Amino acid sequence: MNNPFFKNHGPFDLLDLLKNNYDLEFSLTDISKNKHIIKDVKNLENATSNDITFFHSIKYKDLAQKTKAIACITKKEFLNFLPKDCIKIICPNVLFLTALVTSKLYPDSVIDNNNLDLEIIDDKFENIIYGKNTYIGKNVSIGEKTKIGHNTLIESNVIIGKNCIIGSNVIIRNSIIEDYVHILDGAIIGKKGFGFIPNNNINFRYPHVGYVHIKKNSEIGCGCTIDRGSLSITIIGENTYLDNHVHIAHNVKIGNNCIIAGQVGIAGSTTLGDNVIIGGQAGVSGHLKIGNNVQIGGGSGVIKDIANNSRVMGYPAKDFKKFIRESR
Amino acid sequence: MNNPFFKNHGPFDLLDLLKNNYDLEFSLTDISKNKHIIKDVKNLENATSNDITFFHSIKYKDLAQKTKAIACITKKEFLNFLPKDCIKIICPNVLFLTALVTSKLYPDSVIDNNNLDLEIIDDKFENIIYGKNTYIGKNVSIGEKTKIGHNTLIESNVIIGKNCIIGSNVIIRNSIIEDYVHILDGAIIGKKGFGFIPNNNINFRYPHVGYVHIKKNSEIGCGCTIDRGSLSITIIGENTYLDNHVHIAHNVKIGNNCIIAGQVGIAGSTTLGDNVIIGGQAGVSGHLKIGNNVQIGGGSGVIKDIANNSRVMGYPAKDFKKFIRESR
Amino acid sequence: MNNPFFKNHGPFDLLDLLKNNYDLEFSLTDISKNKHIIKDVKNLENATSNDITFFHSIKYKDLAQKTKAIACITKKEFLNFLPKDCIKIICPNVLFLTALVTSKLYPDSVIDNNNLDLEIIDDKFENIIYGKNTYIGKNVSIGEKTKIGHNTLIESNVIIGKNCIIGSNVIIRNSIIEDYVHILDGAIIGKKGFGFIPNNNINFRYPHVGYVHIKKNSEIGCGCTIDRGSLSITIIGENTYLDNHVHIAHNVKIGNNCIIAGQVGIAGSTTLGDNVIIGGQAGVSGHLKIGNNVQIGGGSGVIKDIANNSRVMGYPAKDFKKFIRESR
Repeated sequence: MNNPFFKNHGPFDLLDLLKNNYDLEFSLTDISKNKHIIKDVKNLENATSNDITFFHSIKYKDLAQKTKAIACITKKEFLNFLPKDCIKIICPNVLFLTALVTSKLYPDSVIDNNNLDLEIIDDKFENIIYGKNTYIGKNVSIGEKTKIGHNTLIESNVIIGKNCIIGSNVIIRNSIIEDYVHILDGAIIGKKGFGFIPNNNINFRYPHVGYVHIKKNSEIGCGCTIDRGSLSITIIGENTYLDNHVHIAHNVKIGNNCIIAGQVGIAGSTTLGDNVIIGGQAGVSGHLKIGNNVQIGGGSGVIKDIANNSRVMGYPAKDFKKFIRESR
Repeated sequence: MNNPFFKNHGPFDLLDLLKNNYDLEFSLTDISKNKHIIKDVKNLENATSNDITFFHSIKYKDLAQKTKAIACITKKEFLNFLPKDCIKIICPNVLFLTALVTSKLYPDSVIDNNNLDLEIIDDKFENIIYGKNTYIGKNVSIGEKTKIGHNTLIESNVIIGKNCIIGSNVIIRNSIIEDYVHILDGAIIGKKGFGFIPNNNINFRYPHVGYVHIKKNSEIGCGCTIDRGSLSITIIGENTYLDNHVHIAHNVKIGNNCIIAGQVGIAGSTTLGDNVIIGGQAGVSGHLKIGNNVQIGGGSGVIKDIANNSRVMGYPAKDFKKFIRESR
Repeated sequence: MNNPFFKNHGPFDLLDLLKNNYDLEFSLTDISKNKHIIKDVKNLENATSNDITFFHSIKYKDLAQKTKAIACITKKEFLNFLPKDCIKIICPNVLFLTALVTSKLYPDSVIDNNNLDLEIIDDKFENIIYGKNTYIGKNVSIGEKTKIGHNTLIESNVIIGKNCIIGSNVIIRNSIIEDYVHILDGAIIGKKGFGFIPNNNINFRYPHVGYVHIKKNSEIGCGCTIDRGSLSITIIGENTYLDNHVHIAHNVKIGNNCIIAGQVGIAGSTTLGDNVIIGGQAGVSGHLKIGNNVQIGGGSGVIKDIANNSRVMGYPAKDFKKFIRESR
């Protein structure tokens, strides 16, 4: 991810970056006496030789083996999955240390920005139409022929394409929205995800450096929430339609031509292929991989990966025919 | 349905009406050499001898046998259910051709109107009370003693009765609301339903010619969405109460004295009788018939019709006592 | 509960207080010829010797035995659970009579107040930051360094602490919010609960005299609804985080350090202990007691009490390991 929105305060020397005020213990393997310059924090897949990464779940062992990161925060038991020349930073609380590192690189991403210095949209953009009380933040662009409703807030760091229809009472920040997208009334796009390090008395808020990317021809229903990613992008594919009250958590990636009915919820970091159809009120757990052409029946609770071309239903979701047979 | 809101651009000659730019093939049976004038498109039940209708699911075979429509779009295998003198239009994609016909009759109903020419409510109505930033569209009437909150948008084509209480941040369009109805904060009433013809790269949006009708003494909770019908009305009966975050899809009809708890979802074209009680988070699939005096337990997933006076619970929903017994 | 917000129109003589226009029959036991002065209506636990209370469900028999109320509205079959010197008011519809008594003591609590006389926030408070179109009602205090977004309505009877972050399009009334609380965009806090006495043609709205209390360091997600209590307080504990679209019904009490994922619903009068974790889309029925350190899996439907330190999942929710085993 090349983050277009948050200012990177790096580079830092690796040891400086890891220092923290939380008594969080960690140890390093294989570190030479040279300084190690870290420019960014990225996930296992996207990290380059200037970046630090993290590896906290066995699910990602294949990506870990191929990471190009110069250093990786991980647990003792995962050391052997990482490339030999990657510096291992061993810490029992991988996500907490990653959060601290991210906070140091991107201090502006911790508290979610409620831009209080918005300005009335007025004639800032050519060839768009807008309603009453529509306000705009910094670093916003809007393509021609786009229509924006009333009481809508386009906060900072938003790119909206051409011929979009943005409803009323909508709130958007940290998002890229391509051409011909419809966003219906009351949707909230790009706020930080529900990610934090639980801690008695006062939780530690996880930084959300990512953004939301909605591809062309898609439609987002009334009252939907699409949270921006923590260290990656939340993606809604092309020509994908979401009905009302759908909740898409941070880092979720949805393919093209999907149909997602009302009140569905998709938990963090789950990936959906193309042509996926999900019935109303179904839920999908986090960190799962749902294949292409999958159909998930209404009300289902999906708690494991689903192969391409499958049709499932139930809680937990199972083969559709089996569900119908067992339900008799 | 006598649609009070959308302008009918008909009548059309039948063959002109069916012409389309989508290479959608169809064939006609029994057509004489006379012209056939079509004034409107209606469902099987309401169509008259000036109207075209459609018949896409075997569920509606009884209505099909009695339809008075001059012509009906349907599938080859359903031909025999229709009256002899009804002109049959055979098309593998019944709903798509119906959508194209409807779009030709009602071109304004395809894109959901975000009225951008609203005006501040000011003193347009006598004897009502209203808050800050309340805007009103065209073709709106509001009865006396009605109160309207702040930031509320009453868009075009809305009739509100007397003594209603409309909350803040509410959006209403294409709706008839009777006397003494309460609509709580953040509800969105009358937007188009989640109906479209799936199509790779760019879906075809289904026209929504219908409206929402909320009968007297009812209450709609915070953040509820009630979508308007496609070719029929979405109805909330008298003295029916909806809790927060309830989603009512297009064409749904709910009877009188119903109680619907929080986060319930009812899918398109389903009908509920009178005195129905639905527990929180339950979901009801589309095109179902739920009888009078039915009780549906919280969290249930209803996927088939339910007879009068039944009490059900579970996913899929079954007899309540059976559910409790099997859950031990 | 010492209600800080609604004006008590008492005291009343007991017999005057019970008179009603609804032909609701009741009988009294043990009444002396003296007048009995009633100052307030409270639940079994909090009532003092100046208060009337009510006892409508066998679940509360232990509290009934210890109540200090001078009088109690109850059913015939519960008489023996109440203390000897407590005046018993026997009525087949306990909640209806209680609602009528409450309405007489607190007539302002029946219809939920949409304050239509709000004023622009302007410079009413020192050392706070606020956005566009932020309006304030009567009896509001806001602590220093608190930030408030755009289009937000702080209606009457709200106390907000220091260093809070209140988002945009938020609506708050009848609530106490402690320091360092974050309330995200579109949340609706403190409206009346979904409580009423069902009645053909026109339901009787239950008065909601309570309020919402959100303790320090907590976070309330986008679009959440937290209803105020009827005769008690709705409480969100310290450092408790709610994700988007969570619905908390009236009288619910949630402990400290809880984590509640997206689209969860908790029905009325249920109590959660500390350190409770609830997965997305789970639902908890009303009047239940969930212990400390309980984990409830995503999508679960909880319909009975859960002991401390339990881990449950399923619908209805059962032991987690059992659920996983039976799901294979």
